[in-house]
Amino acid sequence: MLLLHRAVVPGLQHVSRLRLTSRHCIRACSTDNTFQSQHSSLAFSGDNSGSRGWRVIGTLLGLGAVLAYHERRCGATQESPPIYTREEVSSHCSPKTGIWVTFGHEVFDVTEFVDLHPGGPSKLMLAAGGPLEPFWALYAVHNQPHVREVLAQYKIGELDPKDTAPPTLETSDPYAGDPPRHPALKVNSQRPFNAEPPPELLTESYITPNPLFFTRNHLPVPNLDPDTYRLHIKGPSGGQSLSLSLDDLCQFPKHEVTVTLQCAGNRRSEMTRVKEVKGLEWRTGAISTARWAGARLCDVLTQAGHHLSETEAHVCFEGLDSDPTGTAYGASIPLARALDPEADVLLAYEMNGQPLPRDHGFPVRVVVPGVVGARHVKWLGKVSVESEESYSHWQRRDYKGFSPSVDWDTVDFDSAPSIQELPIQSAITEPQDGETIASGEVTVKGYAWSGGGRAVVRVDVSLDGGLTWQVAELNGEDQHPRKAWAWRLWQLQALVPAGQKELNIVCKAVDDSYNVQPDTVAPIWNLRGVLSNAWHRVHVHVTP
Amino acid sequence: MLLLHRAVVPGLQHVSRLRLTSRHCIRACSTDNTFQSQHSSLAFSGDNSGSRGWRVIGTLLGLGAVLAYHERRCGATQESPPIYTREEVSSHCSPKTGIWVTFGHEVFDVTEFVDLHPGGPSKLMLAAGGPLEPFWALYAVHNQPHVREVLAQYKIGELDPKDTAPPTLETSDPYAGDPPRHPALKVNSQRPFNAEPPPELLTESYITPNPLFFTRNHLPVPNLDPDTYRLHIKGPSGGQSLSLSLDDLCQFPKHEVTVTLQCAGNRRSEMTRVKEVKGLEWRTGAISTARWAGARLCDVLTQAGHHLSETEAHVCFEGLDSDPTGTAYGASIPLARALDPEADVLLAYEMNGQPLPRDHGFPVRVVVPGVVGARHVKWLGKVSVESEESYSHWQRRDYKGFSPSVDWDTVDFDSAPSIQELPIQSAITEPQDGETIASGEVTVKGYAWSGGGRAVVRVDVSLDGGLTWQVAELNGEDQHPRKAWAWRLWQLQALVPAGQKELNIVCKAVDDSYNVQPDTVAPIWNLRGVLSNAWHRVHVHVTP
Repeated sequence: MLLLHRAVVPGLQHVSRLRLTSRHCIRACSTDNTFQSQHSSLAFSGDNSGSRGWRVIGTLLGLGAVLAYHERRCGATQESPPIYTREEVSSHCSPKTGIWVTFGHEVFDVTEFVDLHPGGPSKLMLAAGGPLEPFWALYAVHNQPHVREVLAQYKIGELDPKDTAPPTLETSDPYAGDPPRHPALKVNSQRPFNAEPPPELLTESYITPNPLFFTRNHLPVPNLDPDTYRLHIKGPSGGQSLSLSLDDLCQFPKHEVTVTLQCAGNRRSEMTRVKEVKGLEWRTGAISTARWAGARLCDVLTQAGHHLSETEAHVCFEGLDSDPTGTAYGASIPLARALDPEADVLLAYEMNGQPLPRDHGFPVRVVVPGVVGARHVKWLGKVSVESEESYSHWQRRDYKGFSPSVDWDTVDFDSAPSIQELPIQSAITEPQDGETIASGEVTVKGYAWSGGGRAVVRVDVSLDGGLTWQVAELNGEDQHPRKAWAWRLWQLQALVPAGQKELNIVCKAVDDSYNVQPDTVAPIWNLRGVLSNAWHRVHVHVTP
Repeated sequence: MLLLHRAVVPGLQHVSRLRLTSRHCIRACSTDNTFQSQHSSLAFSGDNSGSRGWRVIGTLLGLGAVLAYHERRCGATQESPPIYTREEVSSHCSPKTGIWVTFGHEVFDVTEFVDLHPGGPSKLMLAAGGPLEPFWALYAVHNQPHVREVLAQYKIGELDPKDTAPPTLETSDPYAGDPPRHPALKVNSQRPFNAEPPPELLTESYITPNPLFFTRNHLPVPNLDPDTYRLHIKGPSGGQSLSLSLDDLCQFPKHEVTVTLQCAGNRRSEMTRVKEVKGLEWRTGAISTARWAGARLCDVLTQAGHHLSETEAHVCFEGLDSDPTGTAYGASIPLARALDPEADVLLAYEMNGQPLPRDHGFPVRVVVPGVVGARHVKWLGKVSVESEESYSHWQRRDYKGFSPSVDWDTVDFDSAPSIQELPIQSAITEPQDGETIASGEVTVKGYAWSGGGRAVVRVDVSLDGGLTWQVAELNGEDQHPRKAWAWRLWQLQALVPAGQKELNIVCKAVDDSYNVQPDTVAPIWNLRGVLSNAWHRVHVHVTP
């Protein structure tokens, strides 16, 4: 897993001579809220803005100079260093046990540095007990010599050389061929793999880094050879079918679009608190945003001879992932959407400028902007135009909404439409439920998104459970009307009312059709726990 | 006003020899719930179903025969009848004063018949103190000889002949030229005229009869001559403008579509109960449905040389209604919607098979399916394509949604988008708030609609304030996906839990993007009282 990420951190080879941060001095600085909040957004920023990047470097270099007298806690040792196994390291992941991390073959005890971490303690804690590389690979600000210098002060030993070999594959396990994943992901299920980024990383950048993008697999990840890969496009009745190689697909005009994907089960865990449901316990992270590129589905369908017919029709997708009986994942979308050039439906082969990662459909997946994740079929094998929706289980017997009164004895899946466009959604990512915040001012952050290309026009935030509201500032791309395919990140700086011991923070968003989120979860509860979009609520304690 | 309607009830000239209903016998029949509910939906049905119509006639004829021995209460008097003024009649409009109505020049005291009315007492009460003709004109079931025979039994006198002349016009009043209106309309403002149908009539028929269609005027109704009427279509820069007569417009292909219009202020009265707002006190009736016909706006714009440009553009509409300074009503919609043939935007000249009534824009209005009523500009004078939205007050300084925290001191109208598509909406029309219902079974009726062509897929009804829910039956047209421009009527037959003394009935709808209504009003309260779409709640008493 480490090897995967080490390659992308070449800057770390060059260690500078700069000296490091003093805990006491940073503590002093940190009483200045402006300074601290600048850091917390910059240190992990995925924003490519050059000026912002330079500000970070300047600030950090300044810090390096000011704090040059910090006493070394460890330094380069003269004797042969202590040797630790990965298992030993991983057991040091809390303030109680001490907080250890690895970088390359070295082991560091960063317990005392956690509170000094410019990006905030919670972000460093994501790496507790494991390697730093996967995180540093995502946040380029760490690729600075003085950052490596800071780290060196906390070295306590080295990794057991026997412990660096990759784990052997268990070939009897159908999931044995699944790719390695980023350790920051919160895993809801290993087999099939389902995981979400932690809230504090989710809204650090408008574009979700590929390794952190939420992963929703229904089956083992197929291992496909891009050279022999073929996409089968069934022709119209009496016409010819197409068999497209990856190169063939790249011959179509390349179309790029920024799209947020959300699983129908995002925030299901809040429904479970009302009453048990069937499904994975997604928290707020089954949603992510990427810049996708590929051929437009309408161009490919047109080339295959399809056109909008009078009869209702559907475009069915079949994945190359399949269960032991050979049943593949499948789904469909209405033909009208597939053929509408303004709907931007893609056969995508790039995600944020890279070939699709294996977990996200390598080499080709469908991207259907504004539509539930379940229709964005990965590892795409076959496309056909049919008079009816896909007969796939996931189209007809799952991913549908029902009244709270419907249970597994009374459910009639044919009575509800398959989910396509999703409703307005928003959630708070900072602070987190149960957290303790300082009095004075609080920064509330989160995301908001709506399906069908409807733009988010406002996010209201309440600190008192919904009695009074303040309007949050929206960030991120302001997209075209009717084509707002991506989320808006938002934040609100608000005064914590004096003497308040706790806050009930709530957010709710409004889209440009003025759809709003429902107040509470129980009335939208449904047996599959989908479409959980009630106001998001977090309860925090305030230090006096 | 009477003259307007008398012409359409020719059947009533032929009075049959059949005798009439006995109060006691109908009372006996009415203990049969099935019979009663059949009647209540049939007597005022706007459904054109032949078989249903015949059932009504059969039932009524049967009644007529069975009840032929009813003693005459009044009958044709030998002496000259008492003479009453309209004012005297209008003062008899409640059980306390007695309930009088007129038909032609005759006056009837129907106090004792009200409870026997097959369509239900509340519907007959709509005519209390005034003429029956406007109601009978709408509900053809009254055009039966035996119905007139029933009425004759209640005659008490005749109208003062001096009282049948139309009121003289006050020419200094800019509203003096407004057309006559249906007396069933609940008037929220006389000048300009704003009125809604009463709930019990609103959902009697899927298509709202023209005289009952809610009326939202901002200015006096212009009196336009269809022969000299011209519609000005501004050409593109450097191109030619069009000046179209009504005949010219009829040369374009005629396009028909069933569309529900809703005022942004529908259900504002519920917001007022939370906190004062600026606006008319609409209850649940600022919504109606008609079959519209006209030229497609895209065809007319294309003929004028307009096409979809890369730049964001808007189609601006100007009405021929204007205030004393000459400022006309105006609004705009995005060019993309105007030019999309699938969006069905019309320059309509027919409403339910008739020329547009004056209150609804004669001779030509815009119909923008799925979009707030305010953009359906009436008495259309001018259409132009502009780089910016209409500068009209009603586009830029009204019909926008804000956070509940925004008041008239802090409002920034530029910060919110003008309302175009409306959110999911539903309301209960029967029973009504405060009503007393019988124990046993209750029939709950209402409407549900969503903007943007999103179909209503489910309506949940609760009898216990939202703790438990039942799914209502949807009626009305099942429209094309993405083009569900019209409402669904719905109803639920439910058992009243034994021993229950009151019910808190609630409804909430879901559209095909799975948008839902918010639970409560306060969090969506806004200073203009628009977009009031929280769960609709009625409280009823149950007779033991």
